[in-house]
Amino acid sequence: MLRTIQHHRSVRNFQPGRAVEESLMTELLAAAARASTVGNMQLYSMIVTPAGSPEFAELGPCHFGQPAATGASALVTFCADVHRFSQWCRRRGAEPGYDNLQWFVNGTIDALLASQNFSLEAEANGLGICYLGTTTYTAADIVRILRLPKGVAPVTTVAVGYPAEPLPPLTDRLPLEAVVHRGTYRDYSPERIDEIWAAREASEETAQLLEENGLPNLARIFTERRYTKADALRFSRAYLDMLREQGLFEFDIAEAE
Amino acid sequence: MLRTIQHHRSVRNFQPGRAVEESLMTELLAAAARASTVGNMQLYSMIVTPAGSPEFAELGPCHFGQPAATGASALVTFCADVHRFSQWCRRRGAEPGYDNLQWFVNGTIDALLASQNFSLEAEANGLGICYLGTTTYTAADIVRILRLPKGVAPVTTVAVGYPAEPLPPLTDRLPLEAVVHRGTYRDYSPERIDEIWAAREASEETAQLLEENGLPNLARIFTERRYTKADALRFSRAYLDMLREQGLFEFDIAEAE
Repeated sequence: MLRTIQHHRSVRNFQPGRAVEESLMTELLAAAARASTVGNMQLYSMIVTPAGSPEFAELGPCHFGQPAATGASALVTFCADVHRFSQWCRRRGAEPGYDNLQWFVNGTIDALLASQNFSLEAEANGLGICYLGTTTYTAADIVRILRLPKGVAPVTTVAVGYPAEPLPPLTDRLPLEAVVHRGTYRDYSPERIDEIWAAREASEETAQLLEENGLPNLARIFTERRYTKADALRFSRAYLDMLREQGLFEFDIAEAE
Repeated sequence: MLRTIQHHRSVRNFQPGRAVEESLMTELLAAAARASTVGNMQLYSMIVTPAGSPEFAELGPCHFGQPAATGASALVTFCADVHRFSQWCRRRGAEPGYDNLQWFVNGTIDALLASQNFSLEAEANGLGICYLGTTTYTAADIVRILRLPKGVAPVTTVAVGYPAEPLPPLTDRLPLEAVVHRGTYRDYSPERIDEIWAAREASEETAQLLEENGLPNLARIFTERRYTKADALRFSRAYLDMLREQGLFEFDIAEAE
């Protein structure tokens, strides 16, 4: 397996005050731009916000002040972007019509493949990265801070910098066959569900979490503390509102009939 | 830059009849599973469909019969999957509530980061890959063929196999600074749009396309032939219907208020 892929871990503590060199950052962005992209349209934009800039300070609360965000050397926000391509079309007398779900999905695919190239290239060069899931929770604020025009929507953010020692351990994963299906989807029996999660549920880390949270199992920590239904609904609504506001969900259902 | 990233090209012609060895396929899937994932929940599934299987034959038309799909050694469909995680929650007496846009987006992020690890690992091992954008056009058919339960939605497909010689050339990209923004988004002036596309518009490939299509510029080939507004609306509607059918867009707006 590629060494970089094999050794990936999310880094949440960075060496303070150590910037990513300009030439190295350019290399990471160039690696991102080599990723596959729908129809070679490059329906994404990468916004680099270095530590110390006013926007960097403003982005911190969007990422809930987590140390991975506030302590990074730079935040790179990967956005689905149909704006640039549509502008080009209009300037050439062509009618784009890309303000809809299909194209948001196309842009999201492009943005995420680019982000993973960026991340692997960063790790191959001794940097650490952390994906920030908070990007989709507070997307409307990020739109405002980064001044994203209509047609552009934040999808994810990669925090990057030189990792502080010691490196965190590799994260455990479910057994490979838990996420792989051959031919068609093989649904999970209750027994198989137990089997798949057995190792994680039996770990020392889980035991500690259960004690800290005063809850009888790990699933309830997820649903009652980390990822509640109320948050899911609130963030869903906010993200959909942002997509509509950015003109990426504007299709008239009737038109599509 | 990582050699694999640097040399990426989409491969659409594969050596006929040459399968990807089982052990190598497992390595690629294991590489996929090392990618970052929201909250270590692994909200994705990878469905491997080898050439020669009945499902492989059925998937061909979903991908419009393109040679990259029908000639591959295997198709790997990457799906957002909140089903497995939700099942685990329910089995532990925890109420998931993940049947909404936010979690579809979480699963999409997970699926795409995994797909890019898979693709790079494949290329590092001498295989060729091609992402199939058709996945989102015909997602409901793919759901049926791969028997995806509720909570699972196809996001992208990677066609994989040993490339036929000669390898296609590297694809051109817009100048890097066209897709990179520093600090905040810097909007494009009409002149900058011209500058960004100048090289591509002046290429021999473009000249040939214009002649073949009898159209005055490349943008009109995109909007009138390759990616029409009517298709965008039709596929948007179909994808949203699929998401609703799969229970991934079910939030009651009122609940979120």
